[in-house]
Amino acid sequence: MKKKTKYDVAVVGATGAVGRTMLSILEERKFPIGRLVPLASSRSAGKQVEFNGRKITVEELKAGSFAGLDIALFSAGGSISREFCPIAAQAGCVVIDNSSAFRMEKDIPLVVPEINPHVIGENPGIIANPNCSTIPMVMVLKPIHDRYQIKRVVVSTYQSVSGTGQSAIEELKAQTGQVLKEQPATKDVYPHQIAFNCLPHIDTFLDSGYTKEEMKMVNETRKILEDDAIQVSPTTVRVPVFYAHSEAVNVETEQEIDVKELRKILSEAPGVRLVDSPGKTEYPLAVDAAGRDEVMVGRIRADLDNTRAVNLWIVADNLRKGAALNAIQIAEVLIRR
Amino acid sequence: MKKKTKYDVAVVGATGAVGRTMLSILEERKFPIGRLVPLASSRSAGKQVEFNGRKITVEELKAGSFAGLDIALFSAGGSISREFCPIAAQAGCVVIDNSSAFRMEKDIPLVVPEINPHVIGENPGIIANPNCSTIPMVMVLKPIHDRYQIKRVVVSTYQSVSGTGQSAIEELKAQTGQVLKEQPATKDVYPHQIAFNCLPHIDTFLDSGYTKEEMKMVNETRKILEDDAIQVSPTTVRVPVFYAHSEAVNVETEQEIDVKELRKILSEAPGVRLVDSPGKTEYPLAVDAAGRDEVMVGRIRADLDNTRAVNLWIVADNLRKGAALNAIQIAEVLIRR
Repeated sequence: MKKKTKYDVAVVGATGAVGRTMLSILEERKFPIGRLVPLASSRSAGKQVEFNGRKITVEELKAGSFAGLDIALFSAGGSISREFCPIAAQAGCVVIDNSSAFRMEKDIPLVVPEINPHVIGENPGIIANPNCSTIPMVMVLKPIHDRYQIKRVVVSTYQSVSGTGQSAIEELKAQTGQVLKEQPATKDVYPHQIAFNCLPHIDTFLDSGYTKEEMKMVNETRKILEDDAIQVSPTTVRVPVFYAHSEAVNVETEQEIDVKELRKILSEAPGVRLVDSPGKTEYPLAVDAAGRDEVMVGRIRADLDNTRAVNLWIVADNLRKGAALNAIQIAEVLIRR
Repeated sequence: MKKKTKYDVAVVGATGAVGRTMLSILEERKFPIGRLVPLASSRSAGKQVEFNGRKITVEELKAGSFAGLDIALFSAGGSISREFCPIAAQAGCVVIDNSSAFRMEKDIPLVVPEINPHVIGENPGIIANPNCSTIPMVMVLKPIHDRYQIKRVVVSTYQSVSGTGQSAIEELKAQTGQVLKEQPATKDVYPHQIAFNCLPHIDTFLDSGYTKEEMKMVNETRKILEDDAIQVSPTTVRVPVFYAHSEAVNVETEQEIDVKELRKILSEAPGVRLVDSPGKTEYPLAVDAAGRDEVMVGRIRADLDNTRAVNLWIVADNLRKGAALNAIQIAEVLIRR
């Protein structure tokens, strides 16, 4: 990307849960922005968003929206991305796409800046941002893989409703009020009640019995860690939490694991924060991770039967490191070059 | 136990979440009861409980409480059980204890009636009821073990607050209301907010980094399935759900697994209900399992890399099959003999 002092940036899906978080993170991190162009569907066009103390009117996303802009951050769903990311790239933008549309395409880099910034080429066009459940896991797996070589991962997730979007946040709030008043829960976003319940169902089911969300964790992990031999056995579950995803992870490695050494490695890993003093009831919690940038890891303990395995509890804000923050960190890699 | 037409039964901890469920299950199942004696601490003595349409006053638990009774059902915590179960057994009761106090003692049978009723001897004295997270899992593991021989289990739980007791149900309700009103959550039962959060902490931590709850799943599973070679790698997590525990389970076996055959085996397993039509969004859910007797299993799918492994999602009402129902089924085994 051409070096500039300020960059003109489009945020596609600016009124959604991730889009709003993108705006606040761009502001927080003082990203060198010239013009900010919030884009959305015709339904949301005309709304206003706040950025650096100014109100900016959301424009309708159109093929012509990207003329003259430098960077386009997309978080408006797969079909919008499939249609408009190539158009934005064609118009000369570097596109950072938070949808799953391009993640597994061979020539599209899938990037977590702490792990594999080197896969971003000279003229990247479209760069894919990984899934919100994949990013926290690979942030912790990467240093483990480097030292002990990961063989197999069994992961169960506890994913917050903000991963679905703003409408799901509203649905959890509404249903919770209804259940407390012993009224039936109104279901709209999810096929079943999410208040006071756990749904073992995220994204659609495939013939294999796995969900697309589960396969994202398998395939994206292998692509980001650049090792197709890593086995991932996932169960992804939606829980009645507003913000931050939690994950219970059992990791098997080729090398013997020294848990004390592992704790030191993770405490030094970039973007990772060790929260692991169970005696003081300190372990990663969704309510603590919400609004924070780091991926928290704790409950680190040797497998009971296998000296080449360890159990971990990982928590991160799915809207921040799981989505918006990671996308903006990718943009920062580009402008720092 | 001597054959009678009616049995005099004490319920210790009659005002607690499990105790109340014991009373309603005794009633539902028309257990042949002569005298019902609800017992509790001095704090709860004098309260009334309903049984078969009559109000019965709760008596204070004392050493003399068990004279002349046939069966004593305990669910009042480990220290009460340690003190009073031997006294009740000495007084001639068959004791069925829901606490963890005696479960791992060599001479105490640990029983799930569908699995190992044969371990109950002629004069059992004390019989232990397994943990509420262990029972649903072994109900599903037993037929798998019989057919394919289980080698290793990695389990992550999603446990409801009713497993902690009545006070935790009240705390989740109160905190939920507070958070919805953007007030700080009042913490009393749990060390951290449970509303809209996940706590990777159930029971106390051991030096190994595992919790006692996690070790119950390891040790009780081996004892009930009568196979100390089974490896269990557990993470137990409290979630903001009122009733029913969910569990994501990865099972590795010695034999190759035929998933179609496994589905048939589980559909025929006693006390187990197969709920596994993801295409119709049918899978086990806590809100569906609450108030029901069966252990539900679904999301059955072959491991992606290992033909000797499978993933499952198990849900059961922790107060019923996880505690009160299982205890009363044990009593039914005794009176049917």
